[in-house]
Amino acid sequence: MNIGVIGLGLIGSSLALKADEVYNDIYICGEDINESNLNYAIENRIIKNKIQEKDYSELDILFLAIPVDEILNVLDKILDKVGENTLVVDLGSTKSPICDLVSSNQNRSNFLAAHPIAGTEFSGPMSADSSLFDNKTIILCETEKTENRLLSSAKEFFLSIGMNIKEMKPDEHDKHIAYVSHLSHITSFMLGKTVMDKEKDEGTIYDMAGSGFESTVRLGKSSPSMWAPIFYQNKTNIIDALDEYLKNIKNFKYLIETDNLSEMSKEMKEINGIKNILKGIK
Amino acid sequence: MNIGVIGLGLIGSSLALKADEVYNDIYICGEDINESNLNYAIENRIIKNKIQEKDYSELDILFLAIPVDEILNVLDKILDKVGENTLVVDLGSTKSPICDLVSSNQNRSNFLAAHPIAGTEFSGPMSADSSLFDNKTIILCETEKTENRLLSSAKEFFLSIGMNIKEMKPDEHDKHIAYVSHLSHITSFMLGKTVMDKEKDEGTIYDMAGSGFESTVRLGKSSPSMWAPIFYQNKTNIIDALDEYLKNIKNFKYLIETDNLSEMSKEMKEINGIKNILKGIK
Repeated sequence: MNIGVIGLGLIGSSLALKADEVYNDIYICGEDINESNLNYAIENRIIKNKIQEKDYSELDILFLAIPVDEILNVLDKILDKVGENTLVVDLGSTKSPICDLVSSNQNRSNFLAAHPIAGTEFSGPMSADSSLFDNKTIILCETEKTENRLLSSAKEFFLSIGMNIKEMKPDEHDKHIAYVSHLSHITSFMLGKTVMDKEKDEGTIYDMAGSGFESTVRLGKSSPSMWAPIFYQNKTNIIDALDEYLKNIKNFKYLIETDNLSEMSKEMKEINGIKNILKGIK
Repeated sequence: MNIGVIGLGLIGSSLALKADEVYNDIYICGEDINESNLNYAIENRIIKNKIQEKDYSELDILFLAIPVDEILNVLDKILDKVGENTLVVDLGSTKSPICDLVSSNQNRSNFLAAHPIAGTEFSGPMSADSSLFDNKTIILCETEKTENRLLSSAKEFFLSIGMNIKEMKPDEHDKHIAYVSHLSHITSFMLGKTVMDKEKDEGTIYDMAGSGFESTVRLGKSSPSMWAPIFYQNKTNIIDALDEYLKNIKNFKYLIETDNLSEMSKEMKEINGIKNILKGIK
């Protein structure tokens, strides 16, 4: 099997590592806009070689593990260059803009829109972890538009690296992911900002930070070049989620202002139900 | 050494376990309003016996590891009953209301206001963990009002269980902890609520939840009976922190609405600086 990976960040590099672990007979090439990331990936045997455009047509799967704005920039051009046996798979965190863009491409059936629900707050090939995808879900969109044979081999690939497959419409994906992923990132970034702004005036605050703060602010360490384009592309859904969130925060603030302990407790008790929901998430 | 622990939740039970590990010659008794928690703690040798009021005067340290509203309810009565060699230490997450209340007690010098910056989202003696306090900070307030000899032995105790000691004024503590702990809990609870409310309508959302969501919403599993009184007692500081947070969220929402990717990126890049700040927190 021949695999190409464009973008050797956390996702691309972890995917390459895992594929190499699972398949005996595999050739993995890749590239990254950042020369030192590319060199790191080659030197650390995450990939074998730098990918060449002329190789595209000989690849079985070419993964795009780059920021979602970059996916929109390069996807059409790449699809024009692949062979009939090559499947291009994007791994971005938004799906509608990408599916819309590619809908009129003559090689649409050589494309699969995917989103692995996996990641950490770290970036770059030095963060690569071959277990990143173990038991994680990958969401596939518009699978009916992908050539059957290519779709089957992609599904086989994702199953073989230990992932669970879920299919969904692009707009459904973008709406739900706004709540369950994009919103968490914004609340975490803003918690970090609020505390850091305060710290400018008050020197002692961090001595008082515990593991609870650390956990809640963890996503505030995420990459801006990855996240700004996601917030831009999924703007409408994210604004909806933020409006709901703002309403909830303001309401809880009102309960505090009016000393309404019983209503606060009732609300928190309901939210405690998230325990059972989260049990399956690692 | 004789130790009493009122409140055998996560904090009280973990403290008892650790003290028993560190000191050879120690007697630990305790109590809990919840009979099954008390029995669990005795059966699992977290404490030796149920504490009796007549024992209070023979204790070296009596810890109050109960919700902050309960501390206000019982502190005066308990201080009236202890002997001159007993130090009562509260471990609550607010300090001003407790220090204010106790200021006129005739046995004020037998009291020490403390807040260990340690905890998890779990409650009860079954969550006890003797390593909970390892390398964590304990904040002591108004130490000048505690009898010197008793203060020294309390400090020795906290150092011996592996904690770092920091001293601070009660109002300073409450202001900072509002940002770095209480605010995180509210943002986490409200993230949980926002996603759960959406889930009522949309059945699929949790399949899409990843480890980032799990981390950000973790504190939403915390105990309402512990947290509602904290929000009530530290109301003014928490409202200030919430106002700052709301302002930041609204501003970031505006950047998304106006497609201002460069300003979004700039802001997130600054927040990424939290990486270095968090390095020391485990």
